Amino acid sequence: MYKVDLNCDMGESFGSYTLGKDTEILDYVTSANIACGFHAGDPSIMRETVKTAIAKGVALGAHPGLPDLVGFGRRPMSITPQEAYDMVVYQIGALQGFAQAEGGKLQHVKPHGALYNMAAKDAELSAAIAEAVADVDDRLVLFGLAGGELVKAGKEAGLRTASEVFSDRTYQQDGSLTSRREANALITDHGKAVEQVIRMVKEQKVHTLQGVDIDIEAHTICIHGDGESALDFASYITQALKDANIELTKIADFLE
Amino acid sequence: MYKVDLNCDMGESFGSYTLGKDTEILDYVTSANIACGFHAGDPSIMRETVKTAIAKGVALGAHPGLPDLVGFGRRPMSITPQEAYDMVVYQIGALQGFAQAEGGKLQHVKPHGALYNMAAKDAELSAAIAEAVADVDDRLVLFGLAGGELVKAGKEAGLRTASEVFSDRTYQQDGSLTSRREANALITDHGKAVEQVIRMVKEQKVHTLQGVDIDIEAHTICIHGDGESALDFASYITQALKDANIELTKIADFLE
Amino acid sequence: MYKVDLNCDMGESFGSYTLGKDTEILDYVTSANIACGFHAGDPSIMRETVKTAIAKGVALGAHPGLPDLVGFGRRPMSITPQEAYDMVVYQIGALQGFAQAEGGKLQHVKPHGALYNMAAKDAELSAAIAEAVADVDDRLVLFGLAGGELVKAGKEAGLRTASEVFSDRTYQQDGSLTSRREANALITDHGKAVEQVIRMVKEQKVHTLQGVDIDIEAHTICIHGDGESALDFASYITQALKDANIELTKIADFLE
Amino acid sequence: MYKVDLNCDMGESFGSYTLGKDTEILDYVTSANIACGFHAGDPSIMRETVKTAIAKGVALGAHPGLPDLVGFGRRPMSITPQEAYDMVVYQIGALQGFAQAEGGKLQHVKPHGALYNMAAKDAELSAAIAEAVADVDDRLVLFGLAGGELVKAGKEAGLRTASEVFSDRTYQQDGSLTSRREANALITDHGKAVEQVIRMVKEQKVHTLQGVDIDIEAHTICIHGDGESALDFASYITQALKDANIELTKIADFLE
Repeated sequence: MYKVDLNCDMGESFGSYTLGKDTEILDYVTSANIACGFHAGDPSIMRETVKTAIAKGVALGAHPGLPDLVGFGRRPMSITPQEAYDMVVYQIGALQGFAQAEGGKLQHVKPHGALYNMAAKDAELSAAIAEAVADVDDRLVLFGLAGGELVKAGKEAGLRTASEVFSDRTYQQDGSLTSRREANALITDHGKAVEQVIRMVKEQKVHTLQGVDIDIEAHTICIHGDGESALDFASYITQALKDANIELTKIADFLE
Repeated sequence: MYKVDLNCDMGESFGSYTLGKDTEILDYVTSANIACGFHAGDPSIMRETVKTAIAKGVALGAHPGLPDLVGFGRRPMSITPQEAYDMVVYQIGALQGFAQAEGGKLQHVKPHGALYNMAAKDAELSAAIAEAVADVDDRLVLFGLAGGELVKAGKEAGLRTASEVFSDRTYQQDGSLTSRREANALITDHGKAVEQVIRMVKEQKVHTLQGVDIDIEAHTICIHGDGESALDFASYITQALKDANIELTKIADFLE
Repeated sequence: MYKVDLNCDMGESFGSYTLGKDTEILDYVTSANIACGFHAGDPSIMRETVKTAIAKGVALGAHPGLPDLVGFGRRPMSITPQEAYDMVVYQIGALQGFAQAEGGKLQHVKPHGALYNMAAKDAELSAAIAEAVADVDDRLVLFGLAGGELVKAGKEAGLRTASEVFSDRTYQQDGSLTSRREANALITDHGKAVEQVIRMVKEQKVHTLQGVDIDIEAHTICIHGDGESALDFASYITQALKDANIELTKIADFLE
Repeated sequence: MYKVDLNCDMGESFGSYTLGKDTEILDYVTSANIACGFHAGDPSIMRETVKTAIAKGVALGAHPGLPDLVGFGRRPMSITPQEAYDMVVYQIGALQGFAQAEGGKLQHVKPHGALYNMAAKDAELSAAIAEAVADVDDRLVLFGLAGGELVKAGKEAGLRTASEVFSDRTYQQDGSLTSRREANALITDHGKAVEQVIRMVKEQKVHTLQGVDIDIEAHTICIHGDGESALDFASYITQALKDANIELTKIADFLE
């Protein structure tokens, strides 16, 4: 039987500000990427998110971002590998504190936003991030864009890695995601989105915008927790995956 | 033989800003209270401070503060016990990340500035802080003002606690420190400062400004790492303690 | 004919986080208190809010708060009068920048949250805030709790002041608002809320929880821009005031 | 007689952290670029710096930076022109508040660090910054790298502009500064540094590392306020310029 992990970013509220439908989305996903206070999240949100995720049996992951709250960690910044290492250690540590306090433990680390995208293309930055993860706890699984530098760096650092795919994004022939600035970047049709994902899981192939198939590894699928149709899509994709005989289970259960 | 721990706040630089003579002061103290990014410190400073402390054999402690960088965590803020709990878990966790990455582990936690002073007088706040420490790791030693609420709360939470005394501050009959706004708050004479400390360690007594002796526990002595005479005093007090047959050793080594 | 100003806090969104129904509420109020980046708001939100307020003919006011984004400026902090002065000058200046850029000018200043409440009871803090306002621009109107220290300090500093009243809060015999921790703090019935306000405007009296009437000045009424019923109440109170022959007009138009 | 302005970044302390010898350096320069709280500086530092500059007859300038305190505004960030516009308006406004409060007015605006360097090469970003300056106050002088995009954008926006040159940096044939990563980036010899500057002012030429002379405009010279030899060099260059019959005077006095 096929297996795949389903992950979602969460804990991205801050102080008086609420973002995302975390409690509801936790009924669908198997892994939670929890913001650590740099791009979003605050200590109280982190505790609550960790607690709810544990209660719902969802695996905990740190979701470290760039120190840019007003830009939600989405603006690329020129940081040194050492700075990346340090901010990743800090944020994993902070979330791990809440995991310990709530009687849980971290399963994985997935960088957020610009840090994720920068790492996918930058071997040196990825090496620093992978080292940070390995140095804090080498049993952690490192999430990265399928085919990107972060997954490679994770393997080199001796970590288990999870190749992440996106159901609602189109792919380029080189394996990268089509930029959101392009017209064809998003797959808004739920049926097509799920079809792409199922093929990635079962055949390890994806059809690119250039019209050719490429190989792709799909250990974990990213879905979104905010936006109008987030819950609808979460419900739709989990049912469709089950119907396709793909078991949804947290990554640590099936990564060798 | 008498034993006492000598602690100092450090890692309080930030970005391009340098504060304190950390590297030098680490040659004298046995326990380092390392800022965690809320009142001072940043991820890079934290890593460097942890690394240097480990290299010099100084025990690592988290030094969590209020989220007030511009006020250096010295301005009392009205926070709920839950907020205190959350910010302490976060900061201990963050520093623990660096301890793990550098192959060390945390010995203790000492709240900083206004959080320390508020806790000394506020049982509810102290209970929240003590719980936070115990929930993250119940082997951590909690530092608090000798005779204050934090030490009591730590004991109730099942933690080992360290009663902290100050060499350079005068005491009131109720066991509190004389407010810095008062003329007699500081003991600037090194000889007298050390004399007070030695008596606290050996006789568990301190002479108060009201002219009477009171009982005081002295597990750990706080010294300062910035200011003109910081290194001079560090050198002076360590020698004087040795001369008085008091062994300087990190708190975890002699707390039962 | 009676005249009164109707004000609302706004521009309290931040980055990716949205708070309040600013655009809609601007159709009802005559004065906008715009957050300046310390407790809420960011430069882009400030520009947009200033622009929309000008377009809708609503008077612009700075709404300076404590530097506590995660606490939304609602947690009292121990600051010196000089620190209060400085943070108020900074925030008024920043908002004034946007007013100039959009071709408008500031009408008033109303401190936010804990700063507002602390000032109402603290003459020294109020004097510092009033001086800050006067030093930046002595034509600015200073808003404060009716009967509180800030209004007094504003007058002493030579400023025009606006005594602010709350439609949805009950009053104590000493003129203070009933604490939100008390059961009777809020007036949830729209009819009663408006009745209280109309009496304050026309008779300059308010019935307190102690059962006696006290004198109260009512230059400006505060309403809220977030929450379920914000727009309903805004619509209700503006109609009710018109029906009661009270003209809604911005404070600078009728303060002598 | 030749005229030139001498400027220095200042007000870059923060909270308990001190940076630079502002008070002393103000005895030498004619224009002060004052940090506005994003990359450095805080409201209290800004007030003190404005006050001291006014007292010493030095012209006031806003020194807006990227929102990156830990990186001191030196790390390039990917921001939109609108975001640049907004953060520049905000920061000019904030400093203008202090200028008004202290009875002075702003003369100029000089972006800081990464924002300055990015603007020098990015026409669109420069246009946004220039518009921000012009929209707040079109009498402000905009400082930019001699020959760079910011000066061009300032002129297009109808602003007076000041072409800035560096005494202690070598130049490339295309008019850019040699990157600090290159071995030959800095001119450490005071005599050669001043010689280069004098030639730039008198002949509007600079000798590049490629061995050829290029044209350069020199309205204002940047010197540094921190580092060991800052005061020595300030003293040296001001004397040398006088000896060379170049009058040091603030830019607003001689820009047509």
